[in-house]
Amino acid sequence: MSITAQSVKELREKTGAGLLDCQKALTEAKGNMEEAITILRKKGAASAAKKADRVTKEGLIESYIHVGGKVGVLLEVNCETDFVARNEDFKGFLKDLCLQIAAASPLYVTREEVPEAEVTKERDIAAAQVAGKPPAAVQKIVEGKLEKFYSTLCLIDQPFVKNPDKTVKEILTEKIATIGENISIRRFTRYQLGA
Amino acid sequence: MSITAQSVKELREKTGAGLLDCQKALTEAKGNMEEAITILRKKGAASAAKKADRVTKEGLIESYIHVGGKVGVLLEVNCETDFVARNEDFKGFLKDLCLQIAAASPLYVTREEVPEAEVTKERDIAAAQVAGKPPAAVQKIVEGKLEKFYSTLCLIDQPFVKNPDKTVKEILTEKIATIGENISIRRFTRYQLGA
Repeated sequence: MSITAQSVKELREKTGAGLLDCQKALTEAKGNMEEAITILRKKGAASAAKKADRVTKEGLIESYIHVGGKVGVLLEVNCETDFVARNEDFKGFLKDLCLQIAAASPLYVTREEVPEAEVTKERDIAAAQVAGKPPAAVQKIVEGKLEKFYSTLCLIDQPFVKNPDKTVKEILTEKIATIGENISIRRFTRYQLGA
Repeated sequence: MSITAQSVKELREKTGAGLLDCQKALTEAKGNMEEAITILRKKGAASAAKKADRVTKEGLIESYIHVGGKVGVLLEVNCETDFVARNEDFKGFLKDLCLQIAAASPLYVTREEVPEAEVTKERDIAAAQVAGKPPAAVQKIVEGKLEKFYSTLCLIDQPFVKNPDKTVKEILTEKIATIGENISIRRFTRYQLGA
């Protein structure tokens, strides 16, 4: 088993411990990152605080509280440079996304995040609803219902609240083109009072 | 007869009354906790305890974005009536909590939320660090380190950033006493760019 330079680097970034300590810890842990961190902490060479706050990407965090304080949104969108993060067009896009999330209550950013079990359940329900029709038609209808399901739950697939003729993904693609940098919606949280 | 700091702390937690009031009451009660509570009640200094079990389903969602947009917080705090949710003192408390979360990066609201596996791991690390000392001392040191761990990770146990002589829990208890309604910190989310 070999300890790669990459994993040593990662361990150093996560713990702030020295190069030799990290190499030794990784060897002792047979390359297991979590275990190596524990070994370093037991030796007092790593502090928990240093562990997690290495900034790897640029971007901006934005929030929105709906009038009355019963609905709130927190959002992170990444871009490539801090220059773009300070761009007014980029900031405006984040504000629009916050309003979108507050109004349309998505649960996921993309369809890839929807748990497999939930997709299967939705597919079963859709199939049961069209039982008895020709197989080719069933297939088509089920896919259509699944698309509808994604466009309700996934932010990227939702109709854009400020212009429902386009999806959020289309707006995002436009922003990438006009701003000239890759932009990714990383994560959001939506709170509804008591829900 | 002596009044210990521990008993004063306990009385404060039970009643939400001030430090001096609690010392006086305990002295007057010759160290008897129940009697000290009664004394404080008679003076009207104790009230929080009575309110701590009431149902909270109203409240407010608040957010905070640190200058530069690299750190953001979303917070929900519940109270009993919408009347209190619109109270300036309550709103101010939420703003303070948002600053606390942004600055001190807690991971949980209370220690009850910390996964058992994480506590066990922390206990093992602490024990390994003091290996070789007498068992009685080890026990004490490990408990001390665990308290330190909670006061780093749990919002409620953290020193209040605006006044580190008090914990967030003590500030919360004071707010319950002054506002006159049960208040509970329900949940928060803290985003750090790229972390």
